[in-house]
Amino acid sequence: MVLAGGIGGARFLRGLRAAAPDADVTVVGNTGDDIYLFGLKVCPDLDTVMYTLGGGINEEQGWGRRDETFVVKEELAAYGVEPTWFGLGDRDFATHIVRTQMLDAGYPLSQITEALCDRWEPGVRLLPMTDDRVETHVVVEDEKGRRAIHFQEWWVKLRASLPALAITPVGAPEAKPAPGVLEAVEEADFVLFPPSNPVVSVGTILAVPGIRDALLAKTVVGVSPIIGGAPVRGMADACLTAIGVETSAAGVAGFYGPELVNGWLVAPEDAPHFASPGLEPMTVRAHPLLMSDPEATRALARAAVDLALELA
Amino acid sequence: MVLAGGIGGARFLRGLRAAAPDADVTVVGNTGDDIYLFGLKVCPDLDTVMYTLGGGINEEQGWGRRDETFVVKEELAAYGVEPTWFGLGDRDFATHIVRTQMLDAGYPLSQITEALCDRWEPGVRLLPMTDDRVETHVVVEDEKGRRAIHFQEWWVKLRASLPALAITPVGAPEAKPAPGVLEAVEEADFVLFPPSNPVVSVGTILAVPGIRDALLAKTVVGVSPIIGGAPVRGMADACLTAIGVETSAAGVAGFYGPELVNGWLVAPEDAPHFASPGLEPMTVRAHPLLMSDPEATRALARAAVDLALELA
Repeated sequence: MVLAGGIGGARFLRGLRAAAPDADVTVVGNTGDDIYLFGLKVCPDLDTVMYTLGGGINEEQGWGRRDETFVVKEELAAYGVEPTWFGLGDRDFATHIVRTQMLDAGYPLSQITEALCDRWEPGVRLLPMTDDRVETHVVVEDEKGRRAIHFQEWWVKLRASLPALAITPVGAPEAKPAPGVLEAVEEADFVLFPPSNPVVSVGTILAVPGIRDALLAKTVVGVSPIIGGAPVRGMADACLTAIGVETSAAGVAGFYGPELVNGWLVAPEDAPHFASPGLEPMTVRAHPLLMSDPEATRALARAAVDLALELA
Repeated sequence: MVLAGGIGGARFLRGLRAAAPDADVTVVGNTGDDIYLFGLKVCPDLDTVMYTLGGGINEEQGWGRRDETFVVKEELAAYGVEPTWFGLGDRDFATHIVRTQMLDAGYPLSQITEALCDRWEPGVRLLPMTDDRVETHVVVEDEKGRRAIHFQEWWVKLRASLPALAITPVGAPEAKPAPGVLEAVEEADFVLFPPSNPVVSVGTILAVPGIRDALLAKTVVGVSPIIGGAPVRGMADACLTAIGVETSAAGVAGFYGPELVNGWLVAPEDAPHFASPGLEPMTVRAHPLLMSDPEATRALARAAVDLALELA
């Protein structure tokens, strides 16, 4: 089983499928960055996993559809409809239209995700962390005062340029794990945390009551999203700073905690000075972490699997 | 004021704007052929009027947007989502997305139509006949038995190939005219019926309680949608047959009735044998009815205006 955010999680999963083609993999996807845009339900992380594993992803940018066009977006802008800062393409719109129509018809997100995957055949079982609505909000402050905005507004529109004073998965405390999530944890031989954002991706999944507790009984191996003191991509450092965690491989390991994560893959350059009081129970192993090409990605996933098999 | 359906109404209105550029024109549009597709509210007749007068129409087909692309439709088909028989393009989708979002936010269709027209500047005031949901259903019978289907399914999918046993504007008896409709009738110098479908376009508008009664006090001039015993376009004959009305200029005149329509423009070839008992109070005038080019369309609209001014 793998807990996944967006781009990092999706790429890691592609490596995992190459490293262990016969494995039954269940993926629990973050839905905290879901957002309603133009009345349509957009699930960026689930779609990134689905498109990446299904062969429909825009490889260069890591999200959205390949061979994408932007006619609908252009027309919405011509109507003066906000927001204009979120780049939905025409192919992507179709996914959100289908999803919203099914939600309106009463289907839960988990069943909808399954239906969408019927087309994409991602080769894994993709479950949203919850069927309930969870939205990560970020508290910021500027000349307009202090206010909470949707994570996507902070991340995509503001490019995290305003410091996050707090990051809260609104709705998570009341959310229930989606059907199948806890059962999948229980049946899993081990659980992997890809190098997804520890705060707003994996952390949000862990905030759904019951999931973290279920994982405590499992062998969990994580991959550091920090290499040489900086996030590989995205702006994970802005999220870590917001919650008072140091942007380092050890900082993220400490954020998850040794009671949850049993094995931790760090970049070779971070290994020599990886030391943090309290993290001793964690087995730390050095391995190149950059998912720069399919082979490097496969090797990284294989190393995570091997460490998990050792520890399980 | 003009009561309008789709293509015929929209083209007539373009002629009317050319014939009387300074006139304040209010258009009451048919919403009986509105349909929810993929969870989105589609208003074909309102949009055809808006796109035609706003310069966005596909001139060749008479409906839909020019320079249209069909990426969203292709993707929906890839998901296996029905229906595939209704040709929504990407530009058109944007209109339905904006409309549906505003409906979900609680705005009535009349205000939404006004907001959409802010972009298109059609040069007329476009009002839906009602803010309430009205859907024209058609009773058909085949090997699957007798059943009622949405007008669009009969018209677009089946190309009216099954005889209509009945045509019913479901919801019309309980509908209220949209805000401004009855006031606009009252203030109008006269009212024009373009050569729209008398049953499923103009007839549906007249089925909203209060509209027909308000029109009885007005000078109304209509343009026959039948030339030489055949509809100019569309399949109006199938609709007329369903309600037992002869497909002729006199048949349609009798359907509206002389108490409602005071002046009636017929094609020169229909004038010599235009005679129907009971229609004597109607002033019948011959004029070329084919809206084959902008000048012919302008001249037709001018003839309708002139007749109305004479009779008013």
